[in-house]
Amino acid sequence: MFRKSLLAASVVASLITFPAMANDAIELYGQVAISAYSFAEDGKDTVNRIENESRIGFRGTKEMARAPKLVWQIEGNNVGWSDNEGDGQLGLRDTYAGFTDDSWGLVKFGRFDTPLYRIIDWPYSNPGLGNVFDWGSDIDGGANYSRQSDQISWDSPNWAGFTMTLAAGRGNNPNDSDSNFYGAAAHYNTGPLTLHAGYEYGTGRLVELEDNDTESTLSATSDYMTYLTGFELAFENGIGLFGAYKVMSADYSNYDNGDAGQGTIETRIGDKQDQTSYSVGALYNIGYWQFKLGYAANSDLEIDSNKVDGTADHVISGQTIYFIDNNALVYLRLKAMEINESDITEARLGLEYYF
Amino acid sequence: MFRKSLLAASVVASLITFPAMANDAIELYGQVAISAYSFAEDGKDTVNRIENESRIGFRGTKEMARAPKLVWQIEGNNVGWSDNEGDGQLGLRDTYAGFTDDSWGLVKFGRFDTPLYRIIDWPYSNPGLGNVFDWGSDIDGGANYSRQSDQISWDSPNWAGFTMTLAAGRGNNPNDSDSNFYGAAAHYNTGPLTLHAGYEYGTGRLVELEDNDTESTLSATSDYMTYLTGFELAFENGIGLFGAYKVMSADYSNYDNGDAGQGTIETRIGDKQDQTSYSVGALYNIGYWQFKLGYAANSDLEIDSNKVDGTADHVISGQTIYFIDNNALVYLRLKAMEINESDITEARLGLEYYF
Amino acid sequence: MFRKSLLAASVVASLITFPAMANDAIELYGQVAISAYSFAEDGKDTVNRIENESRIGFRGTKEMARAPKLVWQIEGNNVGWSDNEGDGQLGLRDTYAGFTDDSWGLVKFGRFDTPLYRIIDWPYSNPGLGNVFDWGSDIDGGANYSRQSDQISWDSPNWAGFTMTLAAGRGNNPNDSDSNFYGAAAHYNTGPLTLHAGYEYGTGRLVELEDNDTESTLSATSDYMTYLTGFELAFENGIGLFGAYKVMSADYSNYDNGDAGQGTIETRIGDKQDQTSYSVGALYNIGYWQFKLGYAANSDLEIDSNKVDGTADHVISGQTIYFIDNNALVYLRLKAMEINESDITEARLGLEYYF
Repeated sequence: MFRKSLLAASVVASLITFPAMANDAIELYGQVAISAYSFAEDGKDTVNRIENESRIGFRGTKEMARAPKLVWQIEGNNVGWSDNEGDGQLGLRDTYAGFTDDSWGLVKFGRFDTPLYRIIDWPYSNPGLGNVFDWGSDIDGGANYSRQSDQISWDSPNWAGFTMTLAAGRGNNPNDSDSNFYGAAAHYNTGPLTLHAGYEYGTGRLVELEDNDTESTLSATSDYMTYLTGFELAFENGIGLFGAYKVMSADYSNYDNGDAGQGTIETRIGDKQDQTSYSVGALYNIGYWQFKLGYAANSDLEIDSNKVDGTADHVISGQTIYFIDNNALVYLRLKAMEINESDITEARLGLEYYF
Repeated sequence: MFRKSLLAASVVASLITFPAMANDAIELYGQVAISAYSFAEDGKDTVNRIENESRIGFRGTKEMARAPKLVWQIEGNNVGWSDNEGDGQLGLRDTYAGFTDDSWGLVKFGRFDTPLYRIIDWPYSNPGLGNVFDWGSDIDGGANYSRQSDQISWDSPNWAGFTMTLAAGRGNNPNDSDSNFYGAAAHYNTGPLTLHAGYEYGTGRLVELEDNDTESTLSATSDYMTYLTGFELAFENGIGLFGAYKVMSADYSNYDNGDAGQGTIETRIGDKQDQTSYSVGALYNIGYWQFKLGYAANSDLEIDSNKVDGTADHVISGQTIYFIDNNALVYLRLKAMEINESDITEARLGLEYYF
Repeated sequence: MFRKSLLAASVVASLITFPAMANDAIELYGQVAISAYSFAEDGKDTVNRIENESRIGFRGTKEMARAPKLVWQIEGNNVGWSDNEGDGQLGLRDTYAGFTDDSWGLVKFGRFDTPLYRIIDWPYSNPGLGNVFDWGSDIDGGANYSRQSDQISWDSPNWAGFTMTLAAGRGNNPNDSDSNFYGAAAHYNTGPLTLHAGYEYGTGRLVELEDNDTESTLSATSDYMTYLTGFELAFENGIGLFGAYKVMSADYSNYDNGDAGQGTIETRIGDKQDQTSYSVGALYNIGYWQFKLGYAANSDLEIDSNKVDGTADHVISGQTIYFIDNNALVYLRLKAMEINESDITEARLGLEYYF
């Protein structure tokens, strides 16, 4: 909107050049993450593929003469299988700007994980527990957001081991002013123990289902809530333990059956849904090796307090990492899971390198 | 097409490395531009969002042993809301290559703004006047291109305050050899006064409309023309004034009603359309602050010299900028507009940083 | 999956910064390639456009403390006409990671050209012979892949002029465990002579055709095979010669006529298809100039050993390059071709610069 030429001196010199201001810090960062996996589901053909989660991003900080220090980041998406569904596109992952100060923390605006989701993702969905603990929930429409645009958050500084994050943002139906969410996370570290708590509440979330008979789209809106508590223990002898418990619910309204018959979507999703999850694990670090074992499970989904048979899930996963350098590793992961009564095993051999 | 390995020595050394030729100048540049806005249209739900217009690009110059200096640029699109409609993709903004010399200027090939559109965009659509003066025109199919691929242009050097640009390129139907455009701009600066003139003429522009009854696509082609004249005054006491007048027209032919009835599209768009616009404003710079007030209006659209009621638009916008550093600012903008008889107000609070 | 913050120290310093490890080599590389062309097909409107094949990529190497040297690359797609069909997206071209050692070569995983296709592409589809020798084949479904994801390959070191590549990967239907390919290439250089041989065999390739009457999608699977042998001669006086012969075939099964009548797709594609191609050319290097003349032809397609009239193709192309610097050139290319009985001429004037 404001033209660069009017505001910033631009110098083109030999080799790479950056702006005239010497305190403009710009960093190229990223990861190389390639893995070969074999995904075997009972009764289906085994899928063997090479997944490429490599990506790059650009980020920077700049001291402001008359404002707190500015921070910004533009993060590219994983390059994927290059099937052009957003693969490799800049800005599809954590992309934001804000201000930071040692005394009051960091305020940022843009697209990034919600406070609750950051805890779900790490440490509680590793190694390979995400099929159950992250995206394995059966609540129609979902009971939390993950990486969400239109978000404002505040990260506190570290107060003697205690840190917290507050966030608010728009929901998945941003043209409806009632579609919003609010989130919070708190963390406390003392000695070998770290405690995590997370909370998220959303309103006016658009829930859409297909009606197979009429090929009509049914819709409703949900007010959802999820909270999570968890711990991590990291002992000096290399042994670690972790565990978390997650409670999810959603209330539905504004049922719209499209071209299908009356009552259709209300019959399917009910007035209220509930589900709980937990994730536990242990790890052992020795030399350049890390061994990790994790287990996660979802309870049966309850619709209007009635259990829906066959919706419970569980996964057990074991993983061995060998660090081939300070910021590079190879790993082997073996896991077995039952997702909605379907038995699945997965083996994965991968390489990761961070720069 | 020619393989790099045959033509260019590639050296991989410690930290970032660039080619063997020391005069290859490559620059990472970009902007961080995030704003929160509230868009309130009479009778509709207010939309509150965070818009992210951050982007990066790469550009370079290189002295050629046996040709003029080469210039090139690959510019990424704004990261947007990450809804994957081209957001963040490299090359979607000004992306070109060409040659330059102090004595005769710059010739370039690729994708960039037309000469006329550069003036429409700046200074005459700021602050926030674009809803009317830029994309607010009612001429069916449009009366100018904005950022256009398949374009060749020449920018003159500065001749004692006078500069000009000539351009030619393909239209929006590049498989039809009649779909083309031609553009020119001239600028003259003397003391506090700058004069701008712009012109664009296009042929064979594809105009498509939907017929609601038959869900058929109707089409025609237009020959359009737009010209613009404007001034800027920038006094040493910090006061500035600007104003521009824009005249747009289009002639239609090759009516094609698809599956709809005869005469349908000719009845809707007529043989000839005309509309005029103007934009005026004032600003005041003091210390680290800039205050700016702008107003723009479109006349009623005329179809075959008959005014179409309710097509006039106007916008008034006030903006305060505070420069938090040499190349960073925060701003607040408040505007009110009437677009095709709809009353709209918008408030926007934003951060911009250029690197 | 593993969080960067746990594994890698990240330092933000003045100007561009890279990770703490001083032997992380990261390179920005790319090309600027813009050309204006005129494509004239008998009986159709001539198409005049500016094509932009500019692109950038990032690549790096890193010595590992406890593993061979790691190599990686993330390559962006050509910026194209910016019509948002993957243009400019990172990762759409050669994008991989692997390990390398002088004694045993390079093993890599990801997305890159098959060994056979690398030879088809260069030297035998230049100058401008690709319409026939590369994508000009009439074999339904194709008889080789080009740039393919889900691929593992090994490149040998140079053994006294002899090098080879072996590769295996998933086919175009990766959810079917029978959809795979296997490829090999060998190269031998002695004095002015270089010999090339390439081979590729694929199974379970999904072949889809449209049935115009029923608008149904017909499908089958193919087992295809292509082999190629060729030579290059490069004499010290600047004269060069090249030639290659390519044999393609495919066997079909699993015919599926969708909603169309029985026998439809089997009738169209038969049980077996065969086609052969060759490419020959000569070039002359003198001072900053290169002159090159090429010719390529496809035989008539044979379905179940019966020739299909009008499927043969040929192209003759002449090209003049002028090197305006060590890594930059301008060129003019004129070519004439007959593709499936359609006469086409193309003229192209272009600029290329490698960095």
